[in-house]
Amino acid sequence: MRTNSDDPDAFTVTGASEAAEHRRSIRNYAPEPIPESDLRELLRLAGRAPSAWNVQPWRFVVVQSPALKADLAAAAYGQQQVVRAPATIVLVSDMVDALARIPESTHPDMPQAARDSTVESVRDTFASQSDEQREAWGNAQSNIALGYLLLLAEAFGYGTSPMLGFEPDKVKALLGLPAHVRIPALVAIGYPAEEGFRPHRLPAESLADFR
Amino acid sequence: MRTNSDDPDAFTVTGASEAAEHRRSIRNYAPEPIPESDLRELLRLAGRAPSAWNVQPWRFVVVQSPALKADLAAAAYGQQQVVRAPATIVLVSDMVDALARIPESTHPDMPQAARDSTVESVRDTFASQSDEQREAWGNAQSNIALGYLLLLAEAFGYGTSPMLGFEPDKVKALLGLPAHVRIPALVAIGYPAEEGFRPHRLPAESLADFR
Repeated sequence: MRTNSDDPDAFTVTGASEAAEHRRSIRNYAPEPIPESDLRELLRLAGRAPSAWNVQPWRFVVVQSPALKADLAAAAYGQQQVVRAPATIVLVSDMVDALARIPESTHPDMPQAARDSTVESVRDTFASQSDEQREAWGNAQSNIALGYLLLLAEAFGYGTSPMLGFEPDKVKALLGLPAHVRIPALVAIGYPAEEGFRPHRLPAESLADFR
Repeated sequence: MRTNSDDPDAFTVTGASEAAEHRRSIRNYAPEPIPESDLRELLRLAGRAPSAWNVQPWRFVVVQSPALKADLAAAAYGQQQVVRAPATIVLVSDMVDALARIPESTHPDMPQAARDSTVESVRDTFASQSDEQREAWGNAQSNIALGYLLLLAEAFGYGTSPMLGFEPDKVKALLGLPAHVRIPALVAIGYPAEEGFRPHRLPAESLADFR
C-alpha cells in the first residue's frame, strides 16, 4: 500500500467513497513493482465480492514478467499501459472450473443434505443452458469482482486501467488458458505516474428513478 | 449513513477493505427508511464506476412504495427481503439509452473533432453487433457498478442483498421498462436486522496465478 513515512498522518487505505470519487484511469506508471503481498491481498478482497449461488467464476492471472507483458500488450492492440504498469491482471471467468468446485463453494455451515441439493440444483440450472449463455453469465458475474478490485486498488493507493480492447484468443494462447474461459478485462495496475483525465459521468439524477 | 451519536469515535464511512472483508448478504432489515440523500449519494458514487468507452449503461429504479415492493417481491419468486428492506434497487442496463447519450458521455475536455469521431466509432462498433450481444455487453458492464454499489453500501453502514432470482419480463411490466433493457440484479438495501451468514469463499491462493 502507498505510504508516506514523512507524513505522520499518512493513511494507508482510504475510504470507499473517496476511492469511488477520485478513481480515474491511469496509463503511465512508475517503474516500482507492487509488493506481491499487496497484490495477493487485493485479489483476496476482490474475491469477497458476492455472486449468485456463490459460484465465484473469477480467476486472476497476474502478469509481471517483462517478456510476457510485451506479448500481452501485442495481443491488446499495442496498448502501452500493459507494459508500463508493473503488473497487468488478466481477469478470467471460468465456469467449467467454477461448476466443478461448487461442492467447495457451498456454505460449510449448511447441513450436508442442503449442500448436496444446492450442488445438484446449481448444476442442473447451468446444464440446461447453452455454453454461450453459461459463459456470458460467468463473464457478467466476474465484473462484480472487477468493480471491487478497481475500488480497492484505488483505496490501496494504486492506479488502474481496465481494458476491453484485446484479442481474447491471443491472450488465451499466450497464457495457456482453455478455450471455454472468458476474459472480462485486463487491468493494468501500479503506482500512478500521471494525474489522468478527470472522470466525466452522466448526471446522477438522470440515471435514478425513485418510486 | 449510519452514525451513533453516543459514541464519539463513531465513523460514518468505513474503508474499502473493511467493507469488502465484512460485507455479507442481509435478508432482514429494520423498518426505518434510508434517507433519500444517502440513496442518491450511493447511486452517484456507484455511477463513478468505469465502463468501456465510458458508455455507462446502468440505470437505477429505486422502489420504496410498499405496494410496489409487494408486487416486485411477487415477480421475484416471493423473496421477502424485497418487502422487508426499506428500498429495493432495480439495476437496469439500457444500451439504447446509453448509445443515444454517447455525445453526452464523451469527455468534454476532448477536442470536438475527437469527440465526434469517438461517437461515430462507438456507435459503429455496436451497430455491427446483434441485439443479444449488445444487451449482454451492457448487462456485464453494469455489474462493475453493482460491485461499486455493494461495497459502498456496506461502507455507508447499510446491509444489502443482491438477487438474480426474478422474472425479468414481470419486473419490466411492473415498472414500465422497455423490452430491450436487461436487469442485472435487484438489490435490497436497508439497516441490517440480522447478522447474516459469514461469507464463505474459495481459497484466494487457488484463484490467482502469478507469472
